[in-house]
Amino acid sequence: MEALLGKPVADKITTDLIKDVNALKEKGITPKLTIIRVGNKEDDISYEKAALKRCKDIGIHVDVKVFEKDITEEKFIENIKNVNEDKLTHAILVLRPLPKHINEDKIKHIISPNKDVDCFNTINLGKLLEGDKSGFSPCTPLAVIELLKYYNIDLESKNVVVLGRSNVVGKPLSILLLNENATVTICHSKTKNLSGITKTADILVCAVGKAKMINKDFIKNGAIVIDVGINVDEKGKLCGDVDYDSCIEKACMITPVPRGVGSVTTSILAKNIIKATKINENII
Amino acid sequence: MEALLGKPVADKITTDLIKDVNALKEKGITPKLTIIRVGNKEDDISYEKAALKRCKDIGIHVDVKVFEKDITEEKFIENIKNVNEDKLTHAILVLRPLPKHINEDKIKHIISPNKDVDCFNTINLGKLLEGDKSGFSPCTPLAVIELLKYYNIDLESKNVVVLGRSNVVGKPLSILLLNENATVTICHSKTKNLSGITKTADILVCAVGKAKMINKDFIKNGAIVIDVGINVDEKGKLCGDVDYDSCIEKACMITPVPRGVGSVTTSILAKNIIKATKINENII
Repeated sequence: MEALLGKPVADKITTDLIKDVNALKEKGITPKLTIIRVGNKEDDISYEKAALKRCKDIGIHVDVKVFEKDITEEKFIENIKNVNEDKLTHAILVLRPLPKHINEDKIKHIISPNKDVDCFNTINLGKLLEGDKSGFSPCTPLAVIELLKYYNIDLESKNVVVLGRSNVVGKPLSILLLNENATVTICHSKTKNLSGITKTADILVCAVGKAKMINKDFIKNGAIVIDVGINVDEKGKLCGDVDYDSCIEKACMITPVPRGVGSVTTSILAKNIIKATKINENII
Repeated sequence: MEALLGKPVADKITTDLIKDVNALKEKGITPKLTIIRVGNKEDDISYEKAALKRCKDIGIHVDVKVFEKDITEEKFIENIKNVNEDKLTHAILVLRPLPKHINEDKIKHIISPNKDVDCFNTINLGKLLEGDKSGFSPCTPLAVIELLKYYNIDLESKNVVVLGRSNVVGKPLSILLLNENATVTICHSKTKNLSGITKTADILVCAVGKAKMINKDFIKNGAIVIDVGINVDEKGKLCGDVDYDSCIEKACMITPVPRGVGSVTTSILAKNIIKATKINENII
């Protein structure tokens, strides 16, 4: 059994992006991300830190705009619009979830689609469905695809079962897998005979958010298991949706949690930032 | 074996919509569709005729704008923008495909999302993926869902296999089925062991465009078969993707072609027009 680690994938992407950034800097362009954060939530700050570190390594300039947690929706929208129009900002990341008094369904339509590196705006989800590569795909689903490609796992004609149908992972990932010519089955809480279906998977992707839900009874011999879940187990330890210890005897490859898919996410964010830079500077 | 005919479904939708239109007329509102056609292609005119008849039956006013087939893209865009701004027009249907010198990928982003009853604008596909009901779903996938509902075919927890992954049918339909809590598998030209997969389907939906490709060897006993294909067979006769005569011995229900899903489409278009009318008149 091979553990599919995220770090080498992220390292490879980072190395490639540094070359891109150097080429951009030669043209006098410094890629810039503006992060928009409301309040000081721990999750937000932790993701922000990871993004900042990755961007620094690559040479992407980052501006963090922090707003009081009671900022009015109107004022918040005004600020988003200012960042949309800021010519030096190529990419915008709004840390979510936003406080409840700010309507995300309104905000997402305001953020400039060409700077929307986190695929917050509905139009980028639409482009994903259409297979229009001018849009931005959400980072976690794209991280799964990049990880599979890095480890030379061919998706064409493979039976891939995706467990979970969220708007941020399950649904967009299913479309991305389909675009790679996989045969895709999407399972969820209403699926009957779940293990009967997951056992048909050449590749099983778990994105449900239930600690260690998937054990060896859910996979076939030789399956590749991708674990997108980030949960805390009964001992308070970080774990995925997959019971790793149970599955190692049957799976041929598994992504661990931590150190798996999650380690790739910020490098995908950076990749989207470079793409946004090129789009907004009319280089592609 | 029961033949799932489209007409009773369309009739039911029509009856319901007439009530809606009467209520709107009491408020002084007449729903209006503007059809935009370039040139005089036979397919366009035939769909236009069917739409006109349906709209007339329901009490929807229709304006058909016909442009010369060599109209410039610039001039065409100007006309679309005029219709977008026309306060009396609640719904816009651009007959497609457009001539090659007019870039559909440009046009689709110009059509007002709130009037886009044919789900041409990418943002409506995005809303579909998000499960945001304020958008418009494409007519054929929605016709499949309405047909299944009319015949009391519960989708929850059913294994549904969708054959075909086009942007107009396969992909959006898969998402709609998922929203109805079906477990969905999407197959296509690169799928291996196709019949092995289609035979697991409680409900098999065929949308590939290959005359009579699916015969009894592809379905399980008691399956429900929905045929979205519209093809011409070796004798020049209209037929679906399903070999109806072969499947009748095993399927418990099949939609015929013609007189199946295709008969429902214009009533779904009308349903979307009434929805657009309510949205644009701020009634919902």
